[in-house]
Amino acid sequence: KFTKPFDDGSSKKSAPAVATPITPIVEDDNSKPMRDKMAVFVRKMQKQIADAVDALEIESLWQAAKELGTEPKLCVRDEWIRAEGGKGLSCVLMDGNVFEKAGVLVSVVHGPASAALIKQMRARGKDGVLEESGVYKMFAAGCSMVIHPHNPNAPTAHLNYRYLELVKEGEEKPVAAWFGGGCDLTPSYLFEEDAIHFHQVIKDVCDAHDKEYYPKFKKWCDDYFYIPHRNEARGVGGIFFDDLVSENIYIFRKFIEKLSSQERGDHNEIFKFVQQCGLSFVDQYIPIMKKRWNTPFTPEMKQWQQLRRGRYVEFNLVHDRGTKFGLATPGARIESIMCSLPLTARWEYMHFPEEGSREAELVKVLKTPKDWAV
Amino acid sequence: KFTKPFDDGSSKKSAPAVATPITPIVEDDNSKPMRDKMAVFVRKMQKQIADAVDALEIESLWQAAKELGTEPKLCVRDEWIRAEGGKGLSCVLMDGNVFEKAGVLVSVVHGPASAALIKQMRARGKDGVLEESGVYKMFAAGCSMVIHPHNPNAPTAHLNYRYLELVKEGEEKPVAAWFGGGCDLTPSYLFEEDAIHFHQVIKDVCDAHDKEYYPKFKKWCDDYFYIPHRNEARGVGGIFFDDLVSENIYIFRKFIEKLSSQERGDHNEIFKFVQQCGLSFVDQYIPIMKKRWNTPFTPEMKQWQQLRRGRYVEFNLVHDRGTKFGLATPGARIESIMCSLPLTARWEYMHFPEEGSREAELVKVLKTPKDWAV
Repeated sequence: KFTKPFDDGSSKKSAPAVATPITPIVEDDNSKPMRDKMAVFVRKMQKQIADAVDALEIESLWQAAKELGTEPKLCVRDEWIRAEGGKGLSCVLMDGNVFEKAGVLVSVVHGPASAALIKQMRARGKDGVLEESGVYKMFAAGCSMVIHPHNPNAPTAHLNYRYLELVKEGEEKPVAAWFGGGCDLTPSYLFEEDAIHFHQVIKDVCDAHDKEYYPKFKKWCDDYFYIPHRNEARGVGGIFFDDLVSENIYIFRKFIEKLSSQERGDHNEIFKFVQQCGLSFVDQYIPIMKKRWNTPFTPEMKQWQQLRRGRYVEFNLVHDRGTKFGLATPGARIESIMCSLPLTARWEYMHFPEEGSREAELVKVLKTPKDWAV
Repeated sequence: KFTKPFDDGSSKKSAPAVATPITPIVEDDNSKPMRDKMAVFVRKMQKQIADAVDALEIESLWQAAKELGTEPKLCVRDEWIRAEGGKGLSCVLMDGNVFEKAGVLVSVVHGPASAALIKQMRARGKDGVLEESGVYKMFAAGCSMVIHPHNPNAPTAHLNYRYLELVKEGEEKPVAAWFGGGCDLTPSYLFEEDAIHFHQVIKDVCDAHDKEYYPKFKKWCDDYFYIPHRNEARGVGGIFFDDLVSENIYIFRKFIEKLSSQERGDHNEIFKFVQQCGLSFVDQYIPIMKKRWNTPFTPEMKQWQQLRRGRYVEFNLVHDRGTKFGLATPGARIESIMCSLPLTARWEYMHFPEEGSREAELVKVLKTPKDWAV
């Protein structure tokens, strides 16, 4: 037996929060270190999304299940510990009624900064921050999510928001600290109103903070989620940003020391921005899912969706910097990295959609990014 | 209507051979350039394999089709032209009765050596051959094949044999010319006798040429088809070799000029070896398929096969040097590169086979390469 949808469908599967602090952290208490506030926030964001996923599964089966006496599959909570420091909590649903695979992963880890991380920092031009002989610790808190629905009319969605810090061994204040993340939508069939809605919600969040954010981060997303070997975007985009700190530059130590309390407040402003992005995902995506999950489709449409999933796999395994970095990192948690891949995918030789078809319509949009929000 | 299996099942779908020469090339005529002989040979190997695939599809449907009046799906021939020079012929079967996807691809291409190729040559230590200011042409003839059967008891097989030449602009004789290739088997369920048979056939071919070949190439295969992020091999191996020329070194121009006719014969010896490897594939694989394609299996076994296909995709997209090189080459034929991927694949979060199960038995063998042939 299970309770009515959108009541407390999620509370029965509760699991310990990732970073339950002994003294409760208040997210907007500026006297607390950002790492602690972010650790609490990513878990909150995860819970909100996993609960929304569960609620839709429950809602979709409400009638059928009442009659049959069956229970829907809900997100399974899976906690893990990282030997080098930190832990994570995964909420994963597979083979549900609405969702084929939905993974909402939180990780809050710390420890020695690996050679690979330092190398990547240098490659990205952050070596000005790092002393040649310095030994560094890293702290990272993030929530990443990929949702693949069953219905080919319903789009795949991806989200990732993260906070990173580098601290020199023996010191307290980070030499660098930055936010990164974004969200994007990958439909198999184009519904313009869905793309517009997804973009509009996140544009409103961006605009409330900085009018320059949305145009900049929208383009960043289009550029990042691009599959060069297919000459097409992975999906219809969203936003993407990295290295986000006060005034969009790194916080160097000397800079931190000079920061006035108001400027420190700016860093908290960015945290607020990231929080509002993360918490708005449910508004971005769930209304689309409610519209699409139960619409009719043909086996041919399902097959097209499977081919699009193949492209998703291609992007993630061949091009995604995060995945590549994870795979090349010794001791990385491979199950978390691969969780973004769809449950099922397909590759056909020489499959090209017919001109004028709905499939061709999607591909056309993927070849030339569009402005969705006004 | 179609003819009896193993009679002339392939002749109805004939297509022009890739490199039909005006004067017929005799493969063992040592006075002909290697490039022409290899171009003819790869087409012959392709035809032999595609015919064997078709024959098994026909045989599998012989009874059913006779009763129902239906025809089996056979390999579809697809010819293409490369703008920069050369052409190819693909034989691809999808969604057959025995085979989920079988691709036997031939390409015989030539033209300016791309910056990417030159860079790769240098990275692999071949820069001694190349003059800093030299402009080079390349010639490449190869047959590559991946066969994914439906039945999870039946293994996936891969083959690739190729010949490459680099010629300095304005000259005739190549500054470097070498053979590469191999074959390997990727079961979802381990049948030791299948692995032994696959290895034994190719070991016998190797041994007839050089007793050192098999142990060396078997290990090379185990090392190459390894998925580091999963700590396991892609399959149970086979052979792999690259840069194979007389005495296992590159033929530098000065070396070629000094070659006696007998030594030139050595280069032909290697061609003979490659030919015998390629033509023995049907003996390596078809007997296994005849044993396995129609054996019973459960939906759980099919699901496990799909997960193993996911690993296959991971290897090919993340680690395979050939795929990575192809994807990074502007103007590469993406449909040919992606043809190796299975028709369908699957990724589950935290799927680990039960200890003592047949699935666990396979994974165990993939973690520690075994000596299959005696």
